[in-house]
This record gives sequence, structure tokens and C-alpha cells, in this order.
Amino acid sequence: MKYHNAEKTCWNCPCIDFKGSVDFRACGQSMKQFLSISGEEEDMQAMVECKRRPEIGTFDPASITFEDCPEWEERDFGYALKNMKVMILGIDGYLGWTLGLWLGSLGFNVSGVDNYYRRDWVMEKGSHTVVPISKMTERLHAVKEILDININFRKMDILDRPRLREFIDEVKPEAIVHYAECPSAPYSMVDVEHATFVQHNNVIGTLGLLFTMRDLVPEASLIKLGSLGEYGSPLTGRPLFEGMFPADAALQWDNREWSLGGELPPRDPPSFYHCSKVQDTFNVYEACKYWWLRSYDIMQGVIYGVHTNQTAANPRLRTRFDVDEWFGTVINRFVAQAVAGIPLTIYGSGGQTRGFIALRDAMQCMTRLIVSPPEPGQYDVVNQISGVYRIEYLAYRAAYSSA
Amino acid sequence: MKYHNAEKTCWNCPCIDFKGSVDFRACGQSMKQFLSISGEEEDMQAMVECKRRPEIGTFDPASITFEDCPEWEERDFGYALKNMKVMILGIDGYLGWTLGLWLGSLGFNVSGVDNYYRRDWVMEKGSHTVVPISKMTERLHAVKEILDININFRKMDILDRPRLREFIDEVKPEAIVHYAECPSAPYSMVDVEHATFVQHNNVIGTLGLLFTMRDLVPEASLIKLGSLGEYGSPLTGRPLFEGMFPADAALQWDNREWSLGGELPPRDPPSFYHCSKVQDTFNVYEACKYWWLRSYDIMQGVIYGVHTNQTAANPRLRTRFDVDEWFGTVINRFVAQAVAGIPLTIYGSGGQTRGFIALRDAMQCMTRLIVSPPEPGQYDVVNQISGVYRIEYLAYRAAYSSA
Repeated sequence: MKYHNAEKTCWNCPCIDFKGSVDFRACGQSMKQFLSISGEEEDMQAMVECKRRPEIGTFDPASITFEDCPEWEERDFGYALKNMKVMILGIDGYLGWTLGLWLGSLGFNVSGVDNYYRRDWVMEKGSHTVVPISKMTERLHAVKEILDININFRKMDILDRPRLREFIDEVKPEAIVHYAECPSAPYSMVDVEHATFVQHNNVIGTLGLLFTMRDLVPEASLIKLGSLGEYGSPLTGRPLFEGMFPADAALQWDNREWSLGGELPPRDPPSFYHCSKVQDTFNVYEACKYWWLRSYDIMQGVIYGVHTNQTAANPRLRTRFDVDEWFGTVINRFVAQAVAGIPLTIYGSGGQTRGFIALRDAMQCMTRLIVSPPEPGQYDVVNQISGVYRIEYLAYRAAYSSA
Repeated sequence: MKYHNAEKTCWNCPCIDFKGSVDFRACGQSMKQFLSISGEEEDMQAMVECKRRPEIGTFDPASITFEDCPEWEERDFGYALKNMKVMILGIDGYLGWTLGLWLGSLGFNVSGVDNYYRRDWVMEKGSHTVVPISKMTERLHAVKEILDININFRKMDILDRPRLREFIDEVKPEAIVHYAECPSAPYSMVDVEHATFVQHNNVIGTLGLLFTMRDLVPEASLIKLGSLGEYGSPLTGRPLFEGMFPADAALQWDNREWSLGGELPPRDPPSFYHCSKVQDTFNVYEACKYWWLRSYDIMQGVIYGVHTNQTAANPRLRTRFDVDEWFGTVINRFVAQAVAGIPLTIYGSGGQTRGFIALRDAMQCMTRLIVSPPEPGQYDVVNQISGVYRIEYLAYRAAYSSA
């Protein structure tokens, strides 16, 4: 039986260690470009060693597939690196906590950091998570007690670069899931303090992380949330091409034609929060190019729901559920408003369509991405939605279901 | 005789004050879009008052041209608003100081701020301006004494938002020239501290400025330096379209075609400094859209030279001349190296071509832009180069001329 990642090779694996006198990561070129420039395309190949299996010595990374490697085990979600070390930045949040439990129960080695800002932001709005959640210390005890999972947690702000560096150096994560950005467009538009806070927190935090990864774990993949909102809504109705322009997209002008394949499509972010995501995109994209880092930028639809097998296992394991106007995403807010019998707040006409995905499905997607790393230097964009709906339809459904 | 800005109207002038119940700046749409949505395109028009000529009451801003208005005088560089208030952020720098003297001698009302960072950065590199310059206090005395110009200067970091706000509120500038960003790609690539400093200084500084302009001087134009480097060098050799895609540029894909006109072309910045310029572009572009601010983004070629009539008038009025590897631009550095008889440092093969412009010409361009403001909501891009040369050719010329 073949899995989605069966044919990936050591070239994608975080366990490789590049050998030889050339530091590929410094050259700002893909291996193919590098080999063609060096004029040794035919003879030369990248040579690596495996950090987990030093006994096999130096080898060609394309010669061993995940399917062949004993360190990659067959699981129902594909081949998985045994005891793979995943660090979650923002592990106290709605998605971070859920993913920590999800991965832990699958046997991943989970670590994480958080500074509890999400709790503060929601309090600042005068709101609170409508599903009560435990404090982190209690969460960590509960997860050990109930699910027998150890989460290596450290409280910190990722903008505290020396501390982040120390923790990453200690853990040496094989994948880093970055949920530590402020995720609210309305929050970023409150005033200048909020706008500058969001961009500083998101953009400078991520830029510091990129340097730390370059120095300590260049083979780890960075899995980071972008936003579908980066693209805006072009008035022409042209396709958005979430990710790069496809190879067969072309620019026509002045009776000539050029391929646009592989370039980043135009962006038009509708808030300073969305600007921060665009600003991140350029930093991450360029870091992959300059240093051969590898990253998935997740263009995630709006997530709804609150249950996974783990978060539902015990009240102490619940994840948060925000319904306020800053941090409550639309379905969650509609459901809460409908249940409470108060009018549903629809921004704009309600005619806008958005992509959605259930929490459980989002966790499955993340797992599959974590075990299917990009190759060195690759900045890849992944759309994560399972359905597209009009807002007014969702409002109708929420109101109707609760009636 | 007609000038380049003769047909601009009060619609472009910083002296207008929007009247009526609609706050155009809050609607995130151009006037045309707004009027067509409101369904009153035929009947409705924007009504304004003039801050300088309150006696004319409420009028249609398109009804008076610069040529007709007595507040706009005929000068050899076009129509100029009498005693126009221009604030220069970064007035202690190479361009800022030169422009301050230039505008002052033309009769503009010049104010400016600086925190002297450029002096610090060059010292950090162990270098110094090879043309000796005075301290700001002495500069201000000299400019008064020798040229009879008053420059309203205040020392501050534009990231100190309350102080910047206070000064802008006091001066109420009619145009703001923003030279207060860190302009060095190599500086931004030194390490994580330098990279995060540059992005924080540039992006957060400019974002704060945008909010301040929205609140206090939404009719003033922002004239800001971008970089030709934002665009990268597309491998296809397609045109860069500095600015927006032209109206007749089209996207072809899947046997269909869409106009790209007016969208921001793809970017691919080659350093974290250049990333900061891209990040700025999105913030400024969106602020113009959200709030009807107006901005020129100057995609400036590499500037060379050190003389204008004012800077050459007295040694105390000189502007700086940096030749180090962080802040010395290429021609200035080549000339200094050639004169000193040391080898010219050429980055890369020398085969790359870049756009150049002489200091004096750059000042002329800036003056023409200042008196020709964009319209409300307009984000416009201006290319400012006068010649394109190969780096190796310049090295040859510098070496040859000094031999």
C-alpha cells in the first residue's frame, strides 16, 4: 500500500546532515541551479549522512525513500518518522493545544512555547473563552495523567530570541509549527498601538525564528499559518492562485508573452493583520531562497468546532472556544449567538464567500504535512479548506439548527 | 506657458478640507467607486472648503486648477504652493539635508526630524563620511547665517509616536518626505539583530506615521523612498512594471484572459532590507485604500555626487558622503577608492546593470513631485533614474578618470 509521502526521500527528511565543502544553504540557489552553474551536473551529487543512522555513512539522499527507511514507519496517515520531534509555537491557543494533544496521542515527541497572549487579548475585549479551559500547568498535568503524554513546555515570548534559541537548541525540533502570531484582523485595526503591535509581534517574531532555524535546525520544516486574505478580491474575478503562479500562467503585454510560473501572485491584504501575513510571506520566501530553509505556508480556511478525541476526553483537556468579535471566527460565533438567542452579527452584506474547515480535519491536514516535509529551499503554499460557503447561508443554518 | 502641474485641481491640493456628512477617507473606496455605489454618480459631487481661502466658501474641488489659484505661483519648476510646508523625516542624512537646503532656498517652509542614526551606523562600520559635516546645531546656525533659511528641526526617533504626533500637529505639514528609513541591504544581512532592527525601524516607523497622517494631516502627501530592488530580477526577463501593472497587461491561463491593470506586480526582494521596502509598500498602499491617504513611492536609482548650489556654498553646509561597504553607494565608493588608489570592490560579476541619478537631478525630481500631489486615495509609484549602467563600466570609468 502506497501513502502520500512514500516516495519522498532523505532529501526531504529532517534527519539528514549535508556533507562536503559546499554549504548549499548559503548559495541562494536550488541544488539543480547550483549543479548546473558549477558545471558538474552530470557527475556531482549532494552527499549526506543520517543523524539517526550514522552507520550507513555518506550517501546520496535521493537513494532512500521514506518507504524504504526503517526510521519511517507505516501509519494510517502515511509514513511517519519514529518519535518525530515537533515544536508548537503558540501551544496554549485554540489550534496549538488541540494539535499538541493530537500529535502526542499519535506518538510524536511534542514540545511547545506560549506567553498566554491569546488569553490576554480576549480579556482585553471583555470576553472569555465560552468553553472553560484550564491553566497551562493544569493542562500539562492532565495530559500526562489522562493521555499519558509528556509535553515539553516552556513559557516564553518568541520575541525573546535568546530564550527561544536556547529551547530550540535543547530540543532540536524536526518540524516547527508556528501558531504564535496574533490572528485577528479587527484587533489590528483598533488603533495605531494595536496595528503596530500585531505587525511587530508577527513579522519580527517570525524573522527572528528564521535566523534561529538557519543557525540551529536548518533541516527542520517550518509550518506556518498564512491567510487566504493575503490575496484580496481582485475586481477582475481572476483566479487567486493561492501559492505561486502555475507554470502555464503567462503575462501578456505589448504583443509579447512571458511565463509567470513560480512567481508570487499579486497581493492586496484587507487589514494590517493581513499585511503582516504578506510581510511574513516575503521574509519566509526569501529565507528559503537565501538559506535553503523549507516551509509550508498554510492558507487556512476559517476553522470551526472544538472537539477531537483528545480535547473531548476530559474537561481539563478542552481547547478554547472564542466567540467575541475580535477572536471568534464566524461559525463559532454564529453558533454561540444562535444558542444564546441573540442576533447574529454579519459583517457586510453576508454575500461574501469564505473557505471553511472543521477542527478535526485541520489537525489531520497538519499531521500529513508534518510527515511530508518540503525539500531544502522550498517555500510551498498549501490551501487548507474543505468547503466554501456564503456567510448568510451559515447564519441561516446556525439560526435554524438552534431554533 | 504650461507647467507639468498646471491642470491639477484643488482635488490634489493639501489645502482642501472635505465637507459634508460622508467621510470619504473611511470608506476604503475611490470617490468614483463610492459615487457609483451610492447610485448618485450624476448628481453628487465632493464639496470642499479651502483652508487658505475660507472666503470662497464651499465649492467643487475640480473647479479650480493650480494655474487658476492665486495660492499657486508660477515658478521655473511648475506651479508652487506659496510657502508650502514640507516636513523631512531624516533631515540629517545624505538626501534629507540636501533636500532641506534645496527646498528652503526655493522658499518652501521646511521642517524636519532626525535621531542621527545614520551617523551611528556608519561609525558602527568603523567608517565616517569622507566629506566632513557639521553637527546639526551648527548646520542650523549656518543655514540661517549663510542662506537665510529657517529650518524647524526637532531631534526625535519617528518610532516615538507621541513626539512625532505632537510635532506634526504643531507644524501641520502639507507634504511629508520620508527619508527616515535605514537604507542598507548589507546592514540588514549582518545578523538577526540587524535584520530585525531594520524591519522594525522601517516598517513599524512608517506604519505609525500613516496613522498619524490619517488623524492629523490626511490631505498631505507622503513622499517615501521605495527601492527598485523590491522587484528582484525575474528569470524570464519580463518587464518589471515599476509601479502597477499597466492597464493593457493581461494574465493568460487555462485558455482564459484577465486584465492585471492596476494590480501590484510580483516582488522578489534580495535582502531583508528590500523585504522591509516591500512590507512598507503594502502598508502604504493599503492605508491609501483604507483611509484615502495619498502617496508617491519613489523607486529611486542609486544616487551619486555631493554638490548642489546650497551644499557647496559653505563647508558648514556640506552633506555627508559615505564610501563604506554598508552605506556607500556604488559610484561614490568607486570614486573614493579610485582617488585613494585602492582596488575597487565590485560585488558579483560586475555585469549587473543598475539605474543611477545625480544628486542635483534627484532634488529636482523631488521638488516637482512635492508640488504635484497625488489625489486622495492614490498610491502612485515614480521611477527616479536618469541612466542605466553596468557596474563594471562604472568601475572602469572611475578608475580611468582618476588615473
